Amino acid sequence: MTVGLVVQKFGGTSVGDAERIRAVADHVARTRRQGHDVVVVVSAMGKFTDELLRLADEVSPTRPPRELDMLLTAGERISMALVCMALTANGVESASFTGSQAGIITDTDHTRAKILEMRPDRIREALAAGQVPVVAGFQGVSTAKDITTLGRGGSDVTAVALAAALNADVCEIYTDVTGVFSADPRVVPKAQRLAKVSFDEMMEMAATGGRVLMLRSVEYAQRHGVPLHVRSSFTWEPGTWIVEEDPTMEQAVVSAVTDDTSEAKVTIGGVPDRPGVAARLFGELANRGINLDMIVQNTGENGLTDISFTVAVLDVDAARDACEAVRSEVGATKVTTDINIGRVTVVGAGMKSNPGVTALMFETLSSIGVNIQMISTSSIRISCVVAADRVEESVRALHSAFGLDRVGP
Amino acid sequence: MTVGLVVQKFGGTSVGDAERIRAVADHVARTRRQGHDVVVVVSAMGKFTDELLRLADEVSPTRPPRELDMLLTAGERISMALVCMALTANGVESASFTGSQAGIITDTDHTRAKILEMRPDRIREALAAGQVPVVAGFQGVSTAKDITTLGRGGSDVTAVALAAALNADVCEIYTDVTGVFSADPRVVPKAQRLAKVSFDEMMEMAATGGRVLMLRSVEYAQRHGVPLHVRSSFTWEPGTWIVEEDPTMEQAVVSAVTDDTSEAKVTIGGVPDRPGVAARLFGELANRGINLDMIVQNTGENGLTDISFTVAVLDVDAARDACEAVRSEVGATKVTTDINIGRVTVVGAGMKSNPGVTALMFETLSSIGVNIQMISTSSIRISCVVAADRVEESVRALHSAFGLDRVGP
Repeated sequence: MTVGLVVQKFGGTSVGDAERIRAVADHVARTRRQGHDVVVVVSAMGKFTDELLRLADEVSPTRPPRELDMLLTAGERISMALVCMALTANGVESASFTGSQAGIITDTDHTRAKILEMRPDRIREALAAGQVPVVAGFQGVSTAKDITTLGRGGSDVTAVALAAALNADVCEIYTDVTGVFSADPRVVPKAQRLAKVSFDEMMEMAATGGRVLMLRSVEYAQRHGVPLHVRSSFTWEPGTWIVEEDPTMEQAVVSAVTDDTSEAKVTIGGVPDRPGVAARLFGELANRGINLDMIVQNTGENGLTDISFTVAVLDVDAARDACEAVRSEVGATKVTTDINIGRVTVVGAGMKSNPGVTALMFETLSSIGVNIQMISTSSIRISCVVAADRVEESVRALHSAFGLDRVGP
Repeated sequence: MTVGLVVQKFGGTSVGDAERIRAVADHVARTRRQGHDVVVVVSAMGKFTDELLRLADEVSPTRPPRELDMLLTAGERISMALVCMALTANGVESASFTGSQAGIITDTDHTRAKILEMRPDRIREALAAGQVPVVAGFQGVSTAKDITTLGRGGSDVTAVALAAALNADVCEIYTDVTGVFSADPRVVPKAQRLAKVSFDEMMEMAATGGRVLMLRSVEYAQRHGVPLHVRSSFTWEPGTWIVEEDPTMEQAVVSAVTDDTSEAKVTIGGVPDRPGVAARLFGELANRGINLDMIVQNTGENGLTDISFTVAVLDVDAARDACEAVRSEVGATKVTTDINIGRVTVVGAGMKSNPGVTALMFETLSSIGVNIQMISTSSIRISCVVAADRVEESVRALHSAFGLDRVGP
């Protein structure tokens, strides 16, 4: 990489204690010595957020969202001030900035605010003055001038949004794993670290159980053309680049196999196959704020059909209630739920030009006697719902069948 | 008290854990039920600030003041969010505000900033909306838009400044003692809680070793005519009112006896008694940023004199160096220091019209064989420097001699 502007984001484990914070400062100083300008984004230290939530539980059964945001944003304040102190000890001039000071303007939806506008004037000034700005991840200030948080994965969003606004050359996401893997290494010991993944692939992986990056920050990065580099703050070695797909490059047919057992299946059966039924059903679910994932409907016999969908396990009771509420109105016969399901997914940008992937996936699952309950696809992804207790062996079999197993010890 | 606006400030021990925070919320709710509008000011929880400083020590040997302020202001953020949650559980509508949000504008002198301006618009709006604003003590925002802290006793200053700006009827300072006492109860078991103290008396007490309130917040309160009420957040009973002296009331001759062993004495001896010597000496001390307290000079024999002054024990070496630096220039013969000294002080607004106080003080100290090394007085105070190991018995003897001992068990 030529000399340029690098945004470096450090997650909770990367700033988990004094020693880790000093290591982060060493790395930032090293990056500066290579001639780069650096903007640092930090999360709260390790388990600090959990401690604050435990304290809140002790104090009150209710947590007004505005106050929850005020409470949790203390975390990044601590880590960023400590990182600046460690940078000073390294001879690197720096200054910390809250989300508000960094010009991260959000809507007023506390605990899961969306960024409306980036006005990082003070960050630009600090860079121009030769300083390393250290910015609080996860937090912003609303149009009503209240402190907000960006929800799960919010620090990554902060980093990507700053990289986009500052036109950075790369946004480095430092974490406790060495990159993005071809499968969860806890499930597939032979999983390999991927050197490069396209934004589209990464989004499909994030949406189907990949745990390294949240969908939201990848989307933001793609929309603004910010290359991401996911790497380890423990080994500091190069990790996985997430970049725009290069049309001149040959793509791996399948890059990764993901798994997700956090969902449940709901089936509404014996539905008359006529217009408006699905609209009524999914309208009711939407009204109740239930997010659906996979939806499958087959035209059945006798003009009747089954509609199945998956929801987060936490929402399964609410989803059943919603279905029951419209059951007689739409003329369905019954509603069933199953929380013992999981999803296995193969993702690969090269799938678009390789029609055999679906067949190999089904064959592989069939060969180990795994029954497929639902199927859903995109141009670069195939997902199958299977029994939860068959998920891990399915992932291993698919990882092997698609030639992803690491060679050697 | 008639219905009005009350500012209630809770110190670190008053919000030290979840149970204490719930007790604070109960008390605020009670005050609201009595019909008062309430503004709450909170410090960081108990030992939290010490924990943050320990963490900073682990991370780095240097602490840039700007970052130290960013670090420490996390503390009030946590306690105020938790207080709001507890208020919500009590059915009281509230909202937390950082120093910046509360419009506390300071200079840029990090770690000991001074308030330049109060713009508590959001606090007024919250009150108008029927809410209890909960404000972070100790912190503000500088004219350079950086987070600042107000130094020792800063949360009291925040409370008094808000009470002044909002024209509150009283500023209640809740702490872990039940009020202001006629002497430190650890030194004088028969010390009594004072029902009422004048601003002038309280300032003399704060300046000479009284530990309940800092000089600065009392000065601010007097300047803006804000009545203070120091009371306990453990018993919730009425404590000590600190108010403007009422000229129609008869004053106690002596209200309190204070002690202070945090200072050392420096003497520069054999100084020629001619104009300019003191100016040269104290100019040098001021240039080195050394704060002096008592200064005593006697005209001696042979045109030579001794000049003695007291400084904080921490500054004694620097003070000696400063004196040595000018010694030959001013023609002095020697510089001596003594860290084993202490100060005992009697304070009383009624002293102005009672000329016998000085005599009784000297007689009392003489009767127990205590030698007086230095004397300094104001219209309502007499201080004597004595040997450090005689301070406590001197305080007890004076407390008794001036009729302050509590009657009964």
